[in-house]
Amino acid sequence: MENSIIELQYALDTFYFLVCGALVMWMAAGFSMLEAGLVRSKNTTEILTKNVALYAVACTMYMVCGYSIMYGGGDFTAFLGGITGDGVAGADEAATYAPSADFFFQVVFVATAMSIVSGAVAERMKLWAFLSFAVVMTGVIYPLEGAWTWGGEAVFGLYTLGDLGFSDFAGSGIVHMAGAAAALAGVILLGPRKGKYSADGKPLAIPGANLPLATLGTFILWMGWFGFNGGSVLATASVESANSVAVVFMNTNAAAAGGLIAALLTARLLFGKADLTMALNGALAGLVAITAEPSTPTPLIATLFGAAGGLLVVFSILTLDKLKIDDPVGAISVHGVVGLLGLLLVPFTNDGASISGQLIGAATIFGWVFASSFAVWFLIKSLFGIRVSEEEEYQGIDVSECGLEAYPEFTS
Amino acid sequence: MENSIIELQYALDTFYFLVCGALVMWMAAGFSMLEAGLVRSKNTTEILTKNVALYAVACTMYMVCGYSIMYGGGDFTAFLGGITGDGVAGADEAATYAPSADFFFQVVFVATAMSIVSGAVAERMKLWAFLSFAVVMTGVIYPLEGAWTWGGEAVFGLYTLGDLGFSDFAGSGIVHMAGAAAALAGVILLGPRKGKYSADGKPLAIPGANLPLATLGTFILWMGWFGFNGGSVLATASVESANSVAVVFMNTNAAAAGGLIAALLTARLLFGKADLTMALNGALAGLVAITAEPSTPTPLIATLFGAAGGLLVVFSILTLDKLKIDDPVGAISVHGVVGLLGLLLVPFTNDGASISGQLIGAATIFGWVFASSFAVWFLIKSLFGIRVSEEEEYQGIDVSECGLEAYPEFTS
Amino acid sequence: MENSIIELQYALDTFYFLVCGALVMWMAAGFSMLEAGLVRSKNTTEILTKNVALYAVACTMYMVCGYSIMYGGGDFTAFLGGITGDGVAGADEAATYAPSADFFFQVVFVATAMSIVSGAVAERMKLWAFLSFAVVMTGVIYPLEGAWTWGGEAVFGLYTLGDLGFSDFAGSGIVHMAGAAAALAGVILLGPRKGKYSADGKPLAIPGANLPLATLGTFILWMGWFGFNGGSVLATASVESANSVAVVFMNTNAAAAGGLIAALLTARLLFGKADLTMALNGALAGLVAITAEPSTPTPLIATLFGAAGGLLVVFSILTLDKLKIDDPVGAISVHGVVGLLGLLLVPFTNDGASISGQLIGAATIFGWVFASSFAVWFLIKSLFGIRVSEEEEYQGIDVSECGLEAYPEFTS
Repeated sequence: MENSIIELQYALDTFYFLVCGALVMWMAAGFSMLEAGLVRSKNTTEILTKNVALYAVACTMYMVCGYSIMYGGGDFTAFLGGITGDGVAGADEAATYAPSADFFFQVVFVATAMSIVSGAVAERMKLWAFLSFAVVMTGVIYPLEGAWTWGGEAVFGLYTLGDLGFSDFAGSGIVHMAGAAAALAGVILLGPRKGKYSADGKPLAIPGANLPLATLGTFILWMGWFGFNGGSVLATASVESANSVAVVFMNTNAAAAGGLIAALLTARLLFGKADLTMALNGALAGLVAITAEPSTPTPLIATLFGAAGGLLVVFSILTLDKLKIDDPVGAISVHGVVGLLGLLLVPFTNDGASISGQLIGAATIFGWVFASSFAVWFLIKSLFGIRVSEEEEYQGIDVSECGLEAYPEFTS
Repeated sequence: MENSIIELQYALDTFYFLVCGALVMWMAAGFSMLEAGLVRSKNTTEILTKNVALYAVACTMYMVCGYSIMYGGGDFTAFLGGITGDGVAGADEAATYAPSADFFFQVVFVATAMSIVSGAVAERMKLWAFLSFAVVMTGVIYPLEGAWTWGGEAVFGLYTLGDLGFSDFAGSGIVHMAGAAAALAGVILLGPRKGKYSADGKPLAIPGANLPLATLGTFILWMGWFGFNGGSVLATASVESANSVAVVFMNTNAAAAGGLIAALLTARLLFGKADLTMALNGALAGLVAITAEPSTPTPLIATLFGAAGGLLVVFSILTLDKLKIDDPVGAISVHGVVGLLGLLLVPFTNDGASISGQLIGAATIFGWVFASSFAVWFLIKSLFGIRVSEEEEYQGIDVSECGLEAYPEFTS
Repeated sequence: MENSIIELQYALDTFYFLVCGALVMWMAAGFSMLEAGLVRSKNTTEILTKNVALYAVACTMYMVCGYSIMYGGGDFTAFLGGITGDGVAGADEAATYAPSADFFFQVVFVATAMSIVSGAVAERMKLWAFLSFAVVMTGVIYPLEGAWTWGGEAVFGLYTLGDLGFSDFAGSGIVHMAGAAAALAGVILLGPRKGKYSADGKPLAIPGANLPLATLGTFILWMGWFGFNGGSVLATASVESANSVAVVFMNTNAAAAGGLIAALLTARLLFGKADLTMALNGALAGLVAITAEPSTPTPLIATLFGAAGGLLVVFSILTLDKLKIDDPVGAISVHGVVGLLGLLLVPFTNDGASISGQLIGAATIFGWVFASSFAVWFLIKSLFGIRVSEEEEYQGIDVSECGLEAYPEFTS
């Protein structure tokens, strides 16, 4: 092809990356609204503060060192934000896209992984302990496992996941299960909220304060996921890649729909009610389930994969509750348990992946993120403590941590 | 043109469809927030549940059979999600776009039509009756009238609307009036809410619980409408189509602005107050009014067409209230009455449409959707009932249908 | 290059403009939610009404005359919406974009400038006085200073800012400081809210009613800013412009992150708390600071520029409070004080700008907008009054101005 065509492809692929990246950035708003809607009003300002701050920390740490660790391959020119805008295109170059667009798309992924954590530790974790963890998670822990997977590097120099048949298209494992693993480590060290369990150990429902907000958050995530999965094709300026991006959009939507319906029906059968929060978690579970491979299923299969996620998430939430793993928004179930399901579904429609490769990959991601997160949470706990006082938890952490109530006129 | 140019056009048109489709999907969040803001707090969880569930049902049913009925032309290869990603481009092919992108764009339209219904029947309809209707509406009723209009098929094999001078660019009639017709049938069988009318039959105002949410919903719809109308040009990768898409974006925005101003001023003159809910409905009415033909007016004409919609919607809402057609969010007025106005405005700027063609088209769409919907609602009513008990309605249907309050800490 | 390539560039640039414009339109929702979250519940319906109405007024007035004034260069063919869709492309034409796309992108900028005003005058200004001012601001005041800057015309025929070394990429001064100047003039004539100052003149905190809404508004603005700054490259269909757009997206995000972190830490040091509203204003300050030149800094520099904005905004808000300039949402600090900072930072990374040019430009914009706005506010005040009665202010202006409470069931 002549240069001018390649240059136009470069421009279109760059624009596509930026639009998809903006949609993924929007997911930060989705997590914020979802979590703010599902906690009690007395802890709402604090969860909002955590969410906006973690996004800013993620963007900064990934620029400072995360991107270099994940994609530098030993070359640390991207260190301290050394990303250059000078991409080139032409017959002698691979037609590609602007380096800054690549960074922009990748940086919003890191924030997604970290957003998963904030929901699970809600209503009892100290804000500054959380943000300290965010610095390490987004600067080192996530980038290192990202280097082993999307970065193509050998795990501690020992084995290469791609060679073993591991495939994770847009990050059911690399992003979602990783976030859930970090969350789980924190939750174990943190313990459940006061009042979550009755005297005889039964889990009690603690209703969220604002369900329209939680619903809005789910819709935002659903929309942002088009960028998350759609952008992960990494190109759109050819017939083949355009077809693939279109399939990914279609299947992402179908899986969310399937997850929502399955969770709604399951909750109806179990509880006799149309449980909105289960429906929302079902939609998110459908999205997580398809994320590992949205480009190969038919839309019917995608709907069924999503439905499997929606079914699983209801039982997972009930089970974790019984195990006294208190996760106020269900993040570990949605992103962790269903993230694993997503990885295991890949070989059914993608010959490039094997069950063993998926299992080894899942074990590698979970093992590394859980162990390193546990160590970091433990260190922070030892040094500063990670849990607010009982008194603060009872009164709500908005006032003690942020000095502001979220709804000063609506509650007494 | 050479193949490489055509392939790049294919890629750009596909990406354009996907971006527009994502914006239309976002309208589902807009309807949810609008409706959740305009009902009382005791019925908010339920309306949210209906909205997320109807979107999922619409996406699934349209994949299962709706798309085949609407665009299959007797060929049902798209049945059960048989949509393939294998689009091709080249000198021998019409430069076009990915089949999956077409499906994705179309499927979010169905959800829009169905979203219109949920608002009108709010605060008193049984959730599962509503979802049962949604299955038929999105799987059969809408797709069939879609086949007669955008699908180009003859109405029951008798007459072809396009030949009679019917034109509906993005669906003032095909989507909006159709949704309103289904809603009207339901509302008539359902009856007004308890407390909507005084002992002597005067309509009483029942204020919505959360106006910021309703405002957010309107903004979301306004934004999403750029995709709704802009995507309906069906191509953007040529100078001519790019010019057309740009005109459509400009005019869509202008009409919404005109509708808002007209409704705000009209309400000020009638009630002496700057009525926010009328202003919001005015913006939506402006959008519905321009939807039948956003590509031919000048922006000044588009503003005036929108203003006509904003003026009409205020009087329509007041009139329907007097007729005891209780529509909590004004959906029948916004989408039905103004949808008809939109159809009738087309011939003023588009020579391809005639008043008679528009009237026949409107009568066909309304007749079919109203009659078939009435039959389905009636069947559901006979089998299971469509209205909650008086006791449940009084207490709010959130608890009885969903088991969850939307704002458990804000209300007593 | 051959014609077909140029035509495809035209199509891609047009689509890019429309996507960016839709994101800027979305900022209107962001301002609405931010302001609605930061005022008290009794003034929420009114601030929402102002926001939706000012957007509609801005779109209409800019079509009627603003666009002609700003870009007509004496040729008023665009007057009364005379924008044509008939763009052309080809070897003999500059490859460019659809005229309607240019209008659409520009028109949403005007609304942004006006949105800044509504927050500063919140909770005490008469609605119709505000909308009267909006007519003049969006129809004349902003377009005239826009003509002197982006329009390239001489200031009152005397001097040309571009020749003096003035550069403002996306409008730190032209849009944001201009909006703040108009707001400041209004606030001075309006006076502070009742209860804002203690008997001995100390500023008292008046908490906003709904912090999740304010947080959502900030996220919406953050997302919309990608269109605001990214679209201001004015082209994306070449390697060079695509690289530039990508850098702008990356730096816009980095600056917001830097601003948020700086404001959060500063507030923590000053008040001992993680003040969410300061963090949100810090993110917005970071965005305003980078807006004057997002294309030349490295992401590390962009983060630091944003952090400078976040630091400054905290002290600015505290200082204006002491000076009895009562600005309920901090708009004058965020957009005015930090807007000036943004202008002054340009010469550090862009050789085409000089400190003297930036100062002259800032003085010109501020002088014109402040003086003309002051005159218009003064005239409106003399004719109709601009402030509600003490009684109305005490009871809340929702009921007196709009006849509707925003949250009728949540407050008593």
